[in-house]
Amino acid sequence: MKRLNSTPKKDGFRMPAEFEKHRGTYIIWPERPDNWRNGGKPAQKVFTEVASIIGKYEQCTMLVKRDQYSNARGMLPPYIRVIEMSNDDSWVRDCGATFVINDQGELRGIDWTFNAWGGLVDGLYFPWAEDDKVAQKMCELEGADRYRLDDFVLEGGNIHVDGEGTAMVSEECMMSPGRNPELSKEEQEKMLKEYLNVEKVLWIPKGVYLDETNGHVDNICNFVRPGELVMAWTDNQNDPQYAISKEVYDYLVNETDAKGRKFIIHKLHIPNPVIITKEESEGVDAVDGTLPRNEGDRLAASYVNYYTGNGFVLLPVFDDPHDKDAKELLQKLYPNRVIETVSAREILLGGGNVHCITQQVPEPIKK
Amino acid sequence: MKRLNSTPKKDGFRMPAEFEKHRGTYIIWPERPDNWRNGGKPAQKVFTEVASIIGKYEQCTMLVKRDQYSNARGMLPPYIRVIEMSNDDSWVRDCGATFVINDQGELRGIDWTFNAWGGLVDGLYFPWAEDDKVAQKMCELEGADRYRLDDFVLEGGNIHVDGEGTAMVSEECMMSPGRNPELSKEEQEKMLKEYLNVEKVLWIPKGVYLDETNGHVDNICNFVRPGELVMAWTDNQNDPQYAISKEVYDYLVNETDAKGRKFIIHKLHIPNPVIITKEESEGVDAVDGTLPRNEGDRLAASYVNYYTGNGFVLLPVFDDPHDKDAKELLQKLYPNRVIETVSAREILLGGGNVHCITQQVPEPIKK
Repeated sequence: MKRLNSTPKKDGFRMPAEFEKHRGTYIIWPERPDNWRNGGKPAQKVFTEVASIIGKYEQCTMLVKRDQYSNARGMLPPYIRVIEMSNDDSWVRDCGATFVINDQGELRGIDWTFNAWGGLVDGLYFPWAEDDKVAQKMCELEGADRYRLDDFVLEGGNIHVDGEGTAMVSEECMMSPGRNPELSKEEQEKMLKEYLNVEKVLWIPKGVYLDETNGHVDNICNFVRPGELVMAWTDNQNDPQYAISKEVYDYLVNETDAKGRKFIIHKLHIPNPVIITKEESEGVDAVDGTLPRNEGDRLAASYVNYYTGNGFVLLPVFDDPHDKDAKELLQKLYPNRVIETVSAREILLGGGNVHCITQQVPEPIKK
Repeated sequence: MKRLNSTPKKDGFRMPAEFEKHRGTYIIWPERPDNWRNGGKPAQKVFTEVASIIGKYEQCTMLVKRDQYSNARGMLPPYIRVIEMSNDDSWVRDCGATFVINDQGELRGIDWTFNAWGGLVDGLYFPWAEDDKVAQKMCELEGADRYRLDDFVLEGGNIHVDGEGTAMVSEECMMSPGRNPELSKEEQEKMLKEYLNVEKVLWIPKGVYLDETNGHVDNICNFVRPGELVMAWTDNQNDPQYAISKEVYDYLVNETDAKGRKFIIHKLHIPNPVIITKEESEGVDAVDGTLPRNEGDRLAASYVNYYTGNGFVLLPVFDDPHDKDAKELLQKLYPNRVIETVSAREILLGGGNVHCITQQVPEPIKK
């Protein structure tokens, strides 16, 4: 497939919203023992559950490194397509392609530079060379030509769009020194508008407390539909999350989207703090250069990190009293979708959640 | 995708002839320095040429190991799809899936056991574990369920079918001690009928002189169409190939196909002996357990190892006086196909030719 030197905007391509129709979903199999406890075995069970749920609704492809191929194929149900692909870890939302479509029914991919959430400044592991090739390889699999940005660092987890001209990113992440320090906010906004093909970018001030991605937007805020948002919230004013959520809320109530609409904002209360146990910490290999998983550390748990697919929403739950409310709110917000849930503690222990481990391929529809 | 416990015959699937319509072609990128001279660089150029020609007529996919991915992508034209896949060498005809179709427009794969042409008896390299997974991975890529034979060794290079109930294999290869020594000829024939879904198996006595695959059928004989064959021939009675070709010819003139037809047989004269030069030999790493490439060794050059695709035939040529006659004969035999040629010496130096490095995916057509 071709590497393109133009931009999606110039070529009439746009990133569709996650809630638009999908051709399928990609996931990467977890295995690295310095991030996933007990050799990745508990995470592999949960990733299998996630893939099994998604695969009921749309084609789901699991990307797997060579040595885990047979094990993954054996664990996953037959309706999951298993494809070999080298990688450095299992966050396809962030290293994978951001797909764009046009009205002629064509699909293309954006291949942002990936540097493990901060490169040599504050990246989470080294090296990340295989991860940076995942987007290209996904494009080849989908038969999609590719916009490669050699000099613009971005992860899919810091992008949401409403499909009607509005994108949102987290400013904390975009302006972090490990991304694109040579570019001003205005210059970055110009890039986002050119590649996502949007007219308006919302700069959510911050991400969830202690989120190790420098505060990706996909853990704190999401579009339910154009003009309607959901955001991570807490009523506990003693929780450091409170000030963050308040700042985000205050930003959003004063903002409008590309069509000039004020937002309907739904608050999704976070679960009680999720803390790494001694046993969990001890199951992770200690390796220089990889973020350690220490006993007592709080994880960035949020229900907002759900995934929206064809006819369903997949919501992470935490065996927490707030699980029930989260599910009820989402069922109200998505009356025509099945709300599926997955016990997500094992994903969270690796540093992300359901949205971080999935990447949709939109269905390009000829108009 | 599923592993099936039935057989193609039981399920109404059959292997179509190579000259029936293709969905596409797979090739594996050459690189191992103990088989391909000069780090595989000359072979990579020729494989690029082969893929470039095939890709003009049908979708062509190049399977590449991780470390050569970027180089292969850079060398190949954009219309070739490049997909990562581990392997032990580049003979997808032999380690890849044999695809079967049914009249409902469905595709499935046969995943024979691959043991590098003879396993621990007289195999050409060790290990071959990644090659043996190629067929499965191709099935996953094509979304095809798979018949896996854990206890039956066969390579695609020892199978040709006419699409009307007849298969041909080389007896020299099938009965070699490194394949299925515990099975009689009759037992093997039963397996072939069950999996290829044919009524008749032709047992070509021998393969081409010095063919290191124990004499694959695809170097000595092919179906042009049902009832019509082409075979490797020489008029030089001093060439050890003469006695072999004579034996094959005498076998074929006395045989009929599944429909009871006698064969029209075309003799395709082999090129003059192709001998490994000192320079060529010295470019290959010497590694224990891999067949050496010695100066002065004769290679199993044959025009019969051509590949038939949608609207074309790809013929290997050798800068030899017989090239012209071979091309003219094929143009006469395939009046509706373009006869493309490729200088194939670099493929031959690795131990095979155009047919050995390609594997078709048939187009399953609903009837």
